Amino acid sequence: MDFIHIIEKKRDGGKLSKEEIYYFISKYVAGEIPDYQVAALLMAIYLNGCDDEETYDLTYSMAYSGDVIDLSAIPGIKVDKHSTGGVGDKVTLIVAPVAAACGVPTAKMSGRGLGFTGGTIDKLESIPGFSTSLTEDEFISQVKDTGYALIGQTKDLAPADKLLYALRDVTGTVGCVPLIASSIMSKKIAAGSDAIVLEVTHGTGAFMREEEKARELARLMMDIGKRAGLEMRAVITDMNEPLGHSIGNSLEVIEAIEALKGNTAEDVYEVMHVIIPEMIVAGGKADSREEAWNMAKKAISSGRALECFRSMIRSQHGDPGIIDDYSLLPEAPYHMDVTADADGFLKVNDCAGIGECLKVLGGGRLTKEQEIDLSVGLEMRVKHQDEVKKGDLLLEIFARNKEEAEAAREQYLASVEITKEKPEKGTLIYTLDD
Amino acid sequence: MDFIHIIEKKRDGGKLSKEEIYYFISKYVAGEIPDYQVAALLMAIYLNGCDDEETYDLTYSMAYSGDVIDLSAIPGIKVDKHSTGGVGDKVTLIVAPVAAACGVPTAKMSGRGLGFTGGTIDKLESIPGFSTSLTEDEFISQVKDTGYALIGQTKDLAPADKLLYALRDVTGTVGCVPLIASSIMSKKIAAGSDAIVLEVTHGTGAFMREEEKARELARLMMDIGKRAGLEMRAVITDMNEPLGHSIGNSLEVIEAIEALKGNTAEDVYEVMHVIIPEMIVAGGKADSREEAWNMAKKAISSGRALECFRSMIRSQHGDPGIIDDYSLLPEAPYHMDVTADADGFLKVNDCAGIGECLKVLGGGRLTKEQEIDLSVGLEMRVKHQDEVKKGDLLLEIFARNKEEAEAAREQYLASVEITKEKPEKGTLIYTLDD
Repeated sequence: MDFIHIIEKKRDGGKLSKEEIYYFISKYVAGEIPDYQVAALLMAIYLNGCDDEETYDLTYSMAYSGDVIDLSAIPGIKVDKHSTGGVGDKVTLIVAPVAAACGVPTAKMSGRGLGFTGGTIDKLESIPGFSTSLTEDEFISQVKDTGYALIGQTKDLAPADKLLYALRDVTGTVGCVPLIASSIMSKKIAAGSDAIVLEVTHGTGAFMREEEKARELARLMMDIGKRAGLEMRAVITDMNEPLGHSIGNSLEVIEAIEALKGNTAEDVYEVMHVIIPEMIVAGGKADSREEAWNMAKKAISSGRALECFRSMIRSQHGDPGIIDDYSLLPEAPYHMDVTADADGFLKVNDCAGIGECLKVLGGGRLTKEQEIDLSVGLEMRVKHQDEVKKGDLLLEIFARNKEEAEAAREQYLASVEITKEKPEKGTLIYTLDD
Repeated sequence: MDFIHIIEKKRDGGKLSKEEIYYFISKYVAGEIPDYQVAALLMAIYLNGCDDEETYDLTYSMAYSGDVIDLSAIPGIKVDKHSTGGVGDKVTLIVAPVAAACGVPTAKMSGRGLGFTGGTIDKLESIPGFSTSLTEDEFISQVKDTGYALIGQTKDLAPADKLLYALRDVTGTVGCVPLIASSIMSKKIAAGSDAIVLEVTHGTGAFMREEEKARELARLMMDIGKRAGLEMRAVITDMNEPLGHSIGNSLEVIEAIEALKGNTAEDVYEVMHVIIPEMIVAGGKADSREEAWNMAKKAISSGRALECFRSMIRSQHGDPGIIDDYSLLPEAPYHMDVTADADGFLKVNDCAGIGECLKVLGGGRLTKEQEIDLSVGLEMRVKHQDEVKKGDLLLEIFARNKEEAEAAREQYLASVEITKEKPEKGTLIYTLDD
């Protein structure tokens, strides 16, 4: 097989065979195809697309380009949950212990934040002593014992995706639905769960701006997962404003614990209400979403979900005392309030712009290698559509110093405005029907 | 400026600015942009195209990416002639001395053969002692003294084109009209002539299969040259069968000398009849094509064109005795005749396929570095559309040994057939009107 012919075929709008796709992925991972040839193919895929069968073959070959985790030692239907990323998205921290408290084993490998989006692993690392690196045996036995574990990627999962993602990042080929779908789903397949609940975001704080594109991506990922024999669920989430009130690693852990204590922002509640039942039904622990949501509410009100979270922290060597005493979490030394300069309604114009505040404060990453400060962040006291009077508190900034706080304030003010008319709001969240 | 934004702009169908194109070329030549990013851009250009202004900016930035030759020491309008390549195309060897004999200074840098096409430099090197490497001063003074010189590329002309061509070759981005035009014209502009006569080939023995594509390429190159202040002419040539009778380096030198002696195959004569007047008119030595062709005919019949060729050989340290005694040229030791196995008409189905015979014989290159045998080749005794009887001589093969001769015969027979009906023939050659 000749790789140039594969490039030419896709360049001319042809369909790549399974053999051609496996040749591409296996030879690229083996270092036998140079980056410049793969870059040309990626651009041809970006511009000419891939059909569902090509995308599936690409995903599956990437999933099996490295280790594939075997979770069969854990009884029951293992459920994973994945978000395409957003600002203030602490949903995983909340829904995993609730699902676990309802008997759904959740063996989740999460990533770190990058760009304007946060990452679950960074958030958990703000808990003193918490370890996100377990051996595979420790990981599996923790899921058996406490119902769930949340760790960083330990094994060499989908190395083809790592290579391709790095190349797409520098060749203008990131925003391509078949490539995004295969990237996400290859890691999910390799991570070994039986069912996956996808949270696909759209809007100014998501990688997909348009809802239609988010639906297309969700649909494609569901198809890939089903072909691979997985139980698939997807929800579409509006990410035109940050989720909840907090943005920042330790601050989001606090907001998640509050949600497990029953104190939840309205938008976070809506997301929980849609995602948690999907996880419980997918895990075979309820027959309907209504039944599942009733189970979830009981798990929260009884304190069982919070106890699950506590057990998980303890198992992963963190200090569970943070649940009752937030001052044990890292605290930023400098505090600044931002107030409204006019009467009107808050309008969020650029959700990613608010996400960028965290980078300005030193709590978000520009590159994967960057060290971040887990204590800094924002508390949004006013949400999109809320009415405000001049002088009302809009935002609290938790910073390392005055300069960074001021820079974050500028960044925030550039992303919102106070309008006379009450601004529009999109549909927050809904389940994508099969 | 950020190269990823340049890739994304072209990917999304945008138009690159002059500044973006100069940034791309200068940084790539400086080694500051990696091949994989350029490969992605090339595929985006291949699929989304470049408008005339972008193509001009690309050409000009490539032309000035290295040395640009100054021919101003040579009086008169210096004329260059370029062919996009073909099989048996010995036209440059014939037209340059005729134009020079008519007073048109021709300072030509030529290339070597690659793939199914031959190269003028290889052909000249079959002349014992002949040197295709002159210093720039020797080159210029020879054009002043003898009217023309034909050498290989000595200086670092258009290094951006060398890099880009090598990358296009391995990324499926060769056959793209704006990229082909900028590649050719960047070298022509850097080579310093005032006027250029382009011979753009199409058909089964050319890189452009369709006549329409050849016209598009010719038109684009003319526009580029005019924008750069050059006098431009273009002729379109049918390359559905090899030109003339000979294919092979020393054999084509003999056919060229015969033409300068007045013994010319019909198709070669037609090409001379169109190209030579364009060179003479472009060089300002005649007002009309008719006048120019009359001058050319006299230059040939008087022997002045042949004497020009002789002076050029002598100046470049070759043995001019070859003009009168072809046995001084390298001769292949093994000879084989191929005869017709039926009555009918010869039909050439694949001109490039006949060109490949030369590679089979060791006289053509697969890679740029390959050493070739200058003595081997083919003499086509029957041309496309000629009537033959069973047993008639079709082809003479001059080979190093029987095995290679047999392989060449197989290759030849796979490229032609004997048909009952007289086959069609395209328009051989015409001038592209301004």
